[in-house]
Amino acid sequence: MDSKNYSSPLDLKQVQITDEFWGREQELVRTEVIPYQWDALNDRIPDAAPSYCMRNFRVAGRMMKEKREQGAKFVAPTYTFRGFEALPEDPKNPDPDKFYGFVFQDSDFAKWIEAVGYSLVNHPDPELEKTADEAIDIAAQAENGYLDTYYIINGMDRIFTNLRDHHELYCFGHLLEGAISYYQATGKDKLLKAAEKYADFISTKFGPEEGKCKGYPGHEIAEMALAKLYEVTGERKYLDLSKFFLDMRGTRPYYFDLEEKERAEHDGMSYREPNPAEIRHAYHQANYPVREQSEAVGHAVRAVYLYSGMADVARLTGDEAMYEACERLWNNITKEKLYITGGIGGTHLGEAFSFGYDLPNDTAYSETCAAIGLAFFARRMLEIQADNRYGDVMEQALYNTVLAGMALDGRSFFYVNPLEVLPEACEKDERKRHVKAIRQKWFGCACCPPNIARIVSSFGAYAYTQNESTLYTHLYAGSRVSFTLNGTAADMKLESNFPWDGEVKAVLHTEDSAKGTLAFRVPGWCRQAKMRIFRDNRICCSCKIDSEGLAVRTEELHDKCGAVNCCSMKRGYLYLTGEWRDGDEICLSFPMEVRCVAANTRVREDTGKVAFVRGPVCYCMEEADNGKNLHLLRVDTEKLFTDGTADISDKVTVEKTGELGHEMCILKAPGKRMSMDGAEELYHDYAPVAESDVTLTFVPYYAWNNRGEGEMSVWVRS
Amino acid sequence: MDSKNYSSPLDLKQVQITDEFWGREQELVRTEVIPYQWDALNDRIPDAAPSYCMRNFRVAGRMMKEKREQGAKFVAPTYTFRGFEALPEDPKNPDPDKFYGFVFQDSDFAKWIEAVGYSLVNHPDPELEKTADEAIDIAAQAENGYLDTYYIINGMDRIFTNLRDHHELYCFGHLLEGAISYYQATGKDKLLKAAEKYADFISTKFGPEEGKCKGYPGHEIAEMALAKLYEVTGERKYLDLSKFFLDMRGTRPYYFDLEEKERAEHDGMSYREPNPAEIRHAYHQANYPVREQSEAVGHAVRAVYLYSGMADVARLTGDEAMYEACERLWNNITKEKLYITGGIGGTHLGEAFSFGYDLPNDTAYSETCAAIGLAFFARRMLEIQADNRYGDVMEQALYNTVLAGMALDGRSFFYVNPLEVLPEACEKDERKRHVKAIRQKWFGCACCPPNIARIVSSFGAYAYTQNESTLYTHLYAGSRVSFTLNGTAADMKLESNFPWDGEVKAVLHTEDSAKGTLAFRVPGWCRQAKMRIFRDNRICCSCKIDSEGLAVRTEELHDKCGAVNCCSMKRGYLYLTGEWRDGDEICLSFPMEVRCVAANTRVREDTGKVAFVRGPVCYCMEEADNGKNLHLLRVDTEKLFTDGTADISDKVTVEKTGELGHEMCILKAPGKRMSMDGAEELYHDYAPVAESDVTLTFVPYYAWNNRGEGEMSVWVRS
Repeated sequence: MDSKNYSSPLDLKQVQITDEFWGREQELVRTEVIPYQWDALNDRIPDAAPSYCMRNFRVAGRMMKEKREQGAKFVAPTYTFRGFEALPEDPKNPDPDKFYGFVFQDSDFAKWIEAVGYSLVNHPDPELEKTADEAIDIAAQAENGYLDTYYIINGMDRIFTNLRDHHELYCFGHLLEGAISYYQATGKDKLLKAAEKYADFISTKFGPEEGKCKGYPGHEIAEMALAKLYEVTGERKYLDLSKFFLDMRGTRPYYFDLEEKERAEHDGMSYREPNPAEIRHAYHQANYPVREQSEAVGHAVRAVYLYSGMADVARLTGDEAMYEACERLWNNITKEKLYITGGIGGTHLGEAFSFGYDLPNDTAYSETCAAIGLAFFARRMLEIQADNRYGDVMEQALYNTVLAGMALDGRSFFYVNPLEVLPEACEKDERKRHVKAIRQKWFGCACCPPNIARIVSSFGAYAYTQNESTLYTHLYAGSRVSFTLNGTAADMKLESNFPWDGEVKAVLHTEDSAKGTLAFRVPGWCRQAKMRIFRDNRICCSCKIDSEGLAVRTEELHDKCGAVNCCSMKRGYLYLTGEWRDGDEICLSFPMEVRCVAANTRVREDTGKVAFVRGPVCYCMEEADNGKNLHLLRVDTEKLFTDGTADISDKVTVEKTGELGHEMCILKAPGKRMSMDGAEELYHDYAPVAESDVTLTFVPYYAWNNRGEGEMSVWVRS
Repeated sequence: MDSKNYSSPLDLKQVQITDEFWGREQELVRTEVIPYQWDALNDRIPDAAPSYCMRNFRVAGRMMKEKREQGAKFVAPTYTFRGFEALPEDPKNPDPDKFYGFVFQDSDFAKWIEAVGYSLVNHPDPELEKTADEAIDIAAQAENGYLDTYYIINGMDRIFTNLRDHHELYCFGHLLEGAISYYQATGKDKLLKAAEKYADFISTKFGPEEGKCKGYPGHEIAEMALAKLYEVTGERKYLDLSKFFLDMRGTRPYYFDLEEKERAEHDGMSYREPNPAEIRHAYHQANYPVREQSEAVGHAVRAVYLYSGMADVARLTGDEAMYEACERLWNNITKEKLYITGGIGGTHLGEAFSFGYDLPNDTAYSETCAAIGLAFFARRMLEIQADNRYGDVMEQALYNTVLAGMALDGRSFFYVNPLEVLPEACEKDERKRHVKAIRQKWFGCACCPPNIARIVSSFGAYAYTQNESTLYTHLYAGSRVSFTLNGTAADMKLESNFPWDGEVKAVLHTEDSAKGTLAFRVPGWCRQAKMRIFRDNRICCSCKIDSEGLAVRTEELHDKCGAVNCCSMKRGYLYLTGEWRDGDEICLSFPMEVRCVAANTRVREDTGKVAFVRGPVCYCMEEADNGKNLHLLRVDTEKLFTDGTADISDKVTVEKTGELGHEMCILKAPGKRMSMDGAEELYHDYAPVAESDVTLTFVPYYAWNNRGEGEMSVWVRS
């Protein structure tokens, strides 16, 4: 591993998002999602199933108080399994002593407080902070540090006996992330201390030492959360625990089998020993030891959460084998299992990856959380090695599937993000029941909306990373960033109108001249980038970067520059090294030509089809613009490609419009509409089909379904 | 209803199939399927799950014997529900007093004996008849006539309490069909008497009279079986019972709800009253009263079994409203829900019809039994009204999906008949788990192989129907048929090389001259048919029939004929009426041009694709001939349609080959193969794809997958 490229995200206090695009998304999260979610967690949303999340914490808090007060007289409940989701017989009169909701219901609070923390950084809000403090004051933690209301209420005699299914370590991971965020935002460490106490308790139960449990999380996240806790506290034991979970995963005999057997014995149930040679637990990414994994399999969210944790540990421990596994898994996802929308997970069965190149559009799962997890993974790979392969996919996920998960008004959400929708099929075809033709207000399993909230409100941590000598710019959102270059404080104001325009201006402010490197991602979608440095309002350096796909040719770089000593390209990043002065301006130009894209011929679903992208934005057709029966439309590739080049900028119109809620670019391209057969015959002799000329309208994929229910398709016949 | 067109199938003794094609299929059934199935029913197939079918009959027979012997001392078992399939804990040591297998396991014996009966008609086999007689001698029937081993063994206190799920009336229907077939073949009425006794018992339990049960079968078949029993015995009560089941179906309140409530009360379980306004039970075609049904819904096999019974009762009672419902349902299936292979059932969820025009190829269900049931329905519609709309679809189902259900060697079977297969997807994608890439030896739910056996061995009943004055020829298999025309005995020898050649010669033998009509179906796939009549080796009449699609123009008919008084076309049938003499020859010519077919533009799955058919045979591409990655291939429609007509006979080669096991015609057509992308990039800038010229090879769909596992596709990009 090339250690000199390591970098870390900035503290959110160092980054302020100032532009219309992400700034607006952050405002939506702050003003719509966070308050709505708090009402949801407190069962105050009319017409939505109660969450019971905060109620569970209060029940657990009361029980722990009783235990403290009653001492030895306290009668602890004895655990009995009641299913993965427990609901009261009468929703209006839940039993005051019972746990309700999914086994992982606690995590919803953790995700909420994480988003609250991020949001408070740039938007102090005493009211919200008071609400959060009061929630933290519920104090449901057991004396030994254990903190999971499912078992506290149902019976702590059986904690950690079903790691595979019961999400204790998942809730724990989210609790850490939430506690760290809230601590970093407010400086208040009550929740962080509780989370640390829980982590310490877990350390006494899990580890390589004899007598300790050798299990690992069924739903990963604790791995990356523990790495973060280590980075925040400096306590090595947390990194060790994270590494332990990774080291144990997928080893033989499978821990999930051992614990299942133990449960069966405990409950007096029959248990059949599995064939020891059989490869199992792919759903949980526990089929092989992590360093031996090469194919992204199973539940897609769990997978990218795991890979994120692996990347953290690889970076923090210099574990080359772990890094290589991450790199293999990254390649497997991005070369065989990634939707053009930045989504992952081809099948709803197990919310999982399908096999290589199996990327169905109409039955896609492409869970919002999985795209978020992919951004987690990408950011962590960038921390190891700045490479536009990672940055491009992170951008693709964030600008397309992640944002598509939320309506433009921030009030409804997609869990599943198909690339083709026929509302009639969603309604009538049970195979597509997971595909909703319209965003939903809330979900029983409410993972996606709070996950959107936490990634959008922490966007700054994805836009920039830094190390001693370098500031990396990965994403071009209008923003202000404070940093140090080899010890000298500096400030950079980045102006951009991304994703609609590729012109970026970065203005430096520094009291002393700052020696070091500014590195900028040159997006893979950009055919020819330009860079100019202005000092004292005069150009002192300029260069062009030609790219062919992802490979950037460096030989044309202009390296005789007054301001910088060295100007070089490496892995799709432009490195500008020199002595920076106050007022230096770096202008980057990433022309956003409309691209007409085809999928690899191995992707059967997209054979004979194309999609349109422009800059980081993937486009789609909607019924609202193009009428019903989108399948009858095709792109007129003959008109588009008359001159045999991929440059179609003169044939596709880019229009700015505010019609969908905020200003965005839509595309208009020449197309054909097949005339509709009569309804008389199901099959008839083939004849070349009559077609009429039409103009196809494409809107950004993230903005689809903001005008009521209708057909949608990303891929169009060509 | 136009009563003069009523007709009935001939007794199988009147028809002998003599040609290579169906004769060979019947031989396979006789020599392979029937003996194999008998072994299966008796749990003698190594490596296959035991059926327990005959064992259940023996257990029930022993119990009934004990009951007779012990009288009042006999302790009858008390019924407890044990699941829809009961298997012994130790398969090698089943409990001698228990029922095993599916609740409908009895029907497998009934289907077997039905096929045995049909087979014995033309192939006397004393050994087989002895085996059948011994099976019949098991005598598992209760004294009151009840005959279902599931309840006899488990407890008769709860018979007819779960009509929706427990298949008693389904097993009863199959028993009737089996008993009638065996009686008609052998003249032995022991089983028929038992079946009648059971029918009489059911008549005492079900009917419009007060106090009788108002229920109807959950899985239909009794309706058509009772109609047949009425026709064999002349007993009106059986027709009345059939009509009663039809009349009750779908009426409010739904019987299935009433019985569910009764069961819940009996078992002390909770029951929630459904919303009375809700339309339910579409899976069982009980959503509406049958005369009000317009859309084919739910489980496809049940649906076409129901419609067959409806057609029978419409014919036998002259019920116009019932006939109109049949006609609506027929149109709905054939105009919106029929695969080009003659298969039905677009979704595996509920083995059911999907919504209109939803005909996915790779996830198709298209159960073999459903295509068989469609042929049942078509034959019954033909009995009401000779119309080539019915005859064409019957032919399409029989020559394609029905035959595809069985390997060319008769030793393995498809339950599901997809139109596109990628073996990797069947293995790795759980959404396609129902699609097998290779035929299976036997199935736990073994409905399809015995169903193929019974329809293939009774093929003659589909080829011809008759009434007092007319012999209808619906299917052109080489055969000999004995019949009467207005009382005069005649014999017709039909020579044909269908489905490979459309030349048909019918030679009449009659001692006296026979007055009456010979009616021949003019297939809808035939663009121009010719007919010539030879008397004394000289042409005495000839005519041409032009068709455009299914509509046949009659104005060009030659009606000045020496042999016949009248020669007319009606609903796609050619009627030749006259005084026939011994030696008269009718030569029919139905040129089998290769047709390149497109689906209605409403069928999204087939947009931009074509399929090839020739005569009744639908074709497909296989990996064995065309290599892997069939999706990269397309038909070169520019080469095919240079002159703008649908006639492509000079560009598509028809070759006879015996390579796949027996002689058949394969097709070779000009095509293009897209070059394969490198594996590096998942998405890239579109460029017109490089293609190479290839010759595409198409084999008959029914013959696919007889050369090992591989890709297959009926539809090809155009």
